[in-house]
Amino acid sequence: MTGPRAAADSSWSSAERAVRSQLAATPPLDVVAMAEAQRYLDRLTKPPGSLGRLETLVVELAGITGCTDATLDHPAIVVAAADHGIARRDVSAYPSEVTAQMVANFVAGGAAVNVLAGVLGATVTVIDVGVAGPIPEVVADPLRGGRLVSARIRPGTADMTEGPAMAREEAMAAIAVGRAVAADLVAEGADLLGIGEMGIGNTTAASTLAAVFTGSAVDAVTGRGTGVDDDGRRRKVEAIETALALHRPDPADPIGVLASVGGLEIAALVGVIIEAVTARVPIVLDGFITGAAALVAVALEPAIGPRLIAGHRSSEPGHRIVLEHLGLAPVLDLDLRLGEASGAALAMGVIAAAVEIRRGMATFDSAGIAGPS
Amino acid sequence: MTGPRAAADSSWSSAERAVRSQLAATPPLDVVAMAEAQRYLDRLTKPPGSLGRLETLVVELAGITGCTDATLDHPAIVVAAADHGIARRDVSAYPSEVTAQMVANFVAGGAAVNVLAGVLGATVTVIDVGVAGPIPEVVADPLRGGRLVSARIRPGTADMTEGPAMAREEAMAAIAVGRAVAADLVAEGADLLGIGEMGIGNTTAASTLAAVFTGSAVDAVTGRGTGVDDDGRRRKVEAIETALALHRPDPADPIGVLASVGGLEIAALVGVIIEAVTARVPIVLDGFITGAAALVAVALEPAIGPRLIAGHRSSEPGHRIVLEHLGLAPVLDLDLRLGEASGAALAMGVIAAAVEIRRGMATFDSAGIAGPS
Repeated sequence: MTGPRAAADSSWSSAERAVRSQLAATPPLDVVAMAEAQRYLDRLTKPPGSLGRLETLVVELAGITGCTDATLDHPAIVVAAADHGIARRDVSAYPSEVTAQMVANFVAGGAAVNVLAGVLGATVTVIDVGVAGPIPEVVADPLRGGRLVSARIRPGTADMTEGPAMAREEAMAAIAVGRAVAADLVAEGADLLGIGEMGIGNTTAASTLAAVFTGSAVDAVTGRGTGVDDDGRRRKVEAIETALALHRPDPADPIGVLASVGGLEIAALVGVIIEAVTARVPIVLDGFITGAAALVAVALEPAIGPRLIAGHRSSEPGHRIVLEHLGLAPVLDLDLRLGEASGAALAMGVIAAAVEIRRGMATFDSAGIAGPS
Repeated sequence: MTGPRAAADSSWSSAERAVRSQLAATPPLDVVAMAEAQRYLDRLTKPPGSLGRLETLVVELAGITGCTDATLDHPAIVVAAADHGIARRDVSAYPSEVTAQMVANFVAGGAAVNVLAGVLGATVTVIDVGVAGPIPEVVADPLRGGRLVSARIRPGTADMTEGPAMAREEAMAAIAVGRAVAADLVAEGADLLGIGEMGIGNTTAASTLAAVFTGSAVDAVTGRGTGVDDDGRRRKVEAIETALALHRPDPADPIGVLASVGGLEIAALVGVIIEAVTARVPIVLDGFITGAAALVAVALEPAIGPRLIAGHRSSEPGHRIVLEHLGLAPVLDLDLRLGEASGAALAMGVIAAAVEIRRGMATFDSAGIAGPS
């Protein structure tokens, strides 16, 4: 590994060096807080461990935040949107203009993520970090409508089968956008972040990243995305193999991989992850594409991995491989494959319930209930 | 089957005959409403089927209620509680008095189900249908406290290794209690029911019912319940085998099985299921013990099966076998094994989100978004 890593080092910009250096200080999970959280859970009126994943979530949250009584009352969802040059290769069931139309739908409040965020009581922030066309004007729903952050780095990536999807500096700029949005949300009080994405063609980019970082065969990490047929899936596999042969991306150089075969929204999500981890705010991944962003972040700094919560397992077949590589067990398995943080939002509901369990249940002592005989 | 069924018929009381006759009119799922619900879902701004289980839940709800626009705004949770004579055989990690203490905890609002119902916005009704001792006096939490229905048929079942757990008429009376409570809730506007239970020793009764109705080996459907050790589990298996040898329960006579090896809370839950199905109100099962109640109900009338929603898969090993026998796929799999409707309450949150998706999302037409290219 010394060879490629050294080669990568020499190509790092000062921005990359700064991020790497900051991430090197990522603390491990707070095991003292985790043990204290588990001890408290064992005093609640239920057999020890009988609330399963709700209990392990409470313990994980203690490890991430360093607090045993974190409240998580202000959930915020970030959806990053961008277009993909590879979409011209007919790798999606939908035309590219749907990206801009869906961004408008997020602002108007009519998308699945708006509804699910409404159920949860979460805000929705939509980042246009690289949509290709104009965003249609819409009337924002005052209750459910998302807040739009216009921070377009470029109007979609280039076709990665012909050249790099974007320049290294563009990838870093998109990461910076994600970091800035997350930092603003945390400054406003967000204490639980969920991430999602929108970008016609982005399962092809995510599959490419998954192949690079997990070392899996392209065929194993490539699915039907929004619903392409066998021919469409074959076109995806061919495009990915062409791009891999062209760029020979080096997993030891995550920013290089992101620039050559990634996406602007994926880069922005890497930034949101980095900022959440730095701020010790729990962050919930959605499906396959946010998983690909997590692969990039964890390649930058492995200590990020245990600080991530996998919201659900997507029915996109590569997602299982991505989650296994990340060592994450999903909270939900609901056969979702929509993206846009829909699965993250549902999982955040379970996480909120877990926090309420810790906060609201009586203890054996307080309720005067006998323990095990 | 003619032999045993005919034999059972002759022993039916008029109450049993009335229930059987009413259940024989259980309608199949409304396939017209289901098809209409699916067509509507396909118009929403998402790739068809991409919301996975949320979509199948919306379709199931249409089939159960016969409405494509059922609201499900008034969820209600019913927790039935009773004691078990078998508990004297040292089959639980907790003493029997915990049943009464936990009923008080449900009323006070300090149990897991109170917290999870609070998150969901559901009412909690606790039925004392057969607790052995007095319920401790507590101050009810005005927000989260459960409403107690005192309808004790007898102070716990008898030890099924020595005789029938209860008389046939007592089983029917407990079923009638469950029906009456459910009918009241529906009359008050409840449009989504979740069921749970509390009863020290009741996994032993549930395992016995599971062995009878699924035909599985006792060992395969017997787990650690609230957390007994290997010896405790062996005592459970022995008690169940003794009871089965004594009663030779006939699965073609579900009320006879329930009386000989069941539980009063399980019987009450059979009543809640029957009433919900009759009223076409969706009902969400919790874990292993509510699954055993569902086995009894489905043995009474197989058309009940497709009208049930399995909230989650418990970590109690027999639950997987019960769900397979019922043909139900659980909404959640969170390694829960608490009971008291905790898993049902969490699943009801997902169901409520599914209903909101149907109600709140924009259509491709209304949002001006392009369909598949």
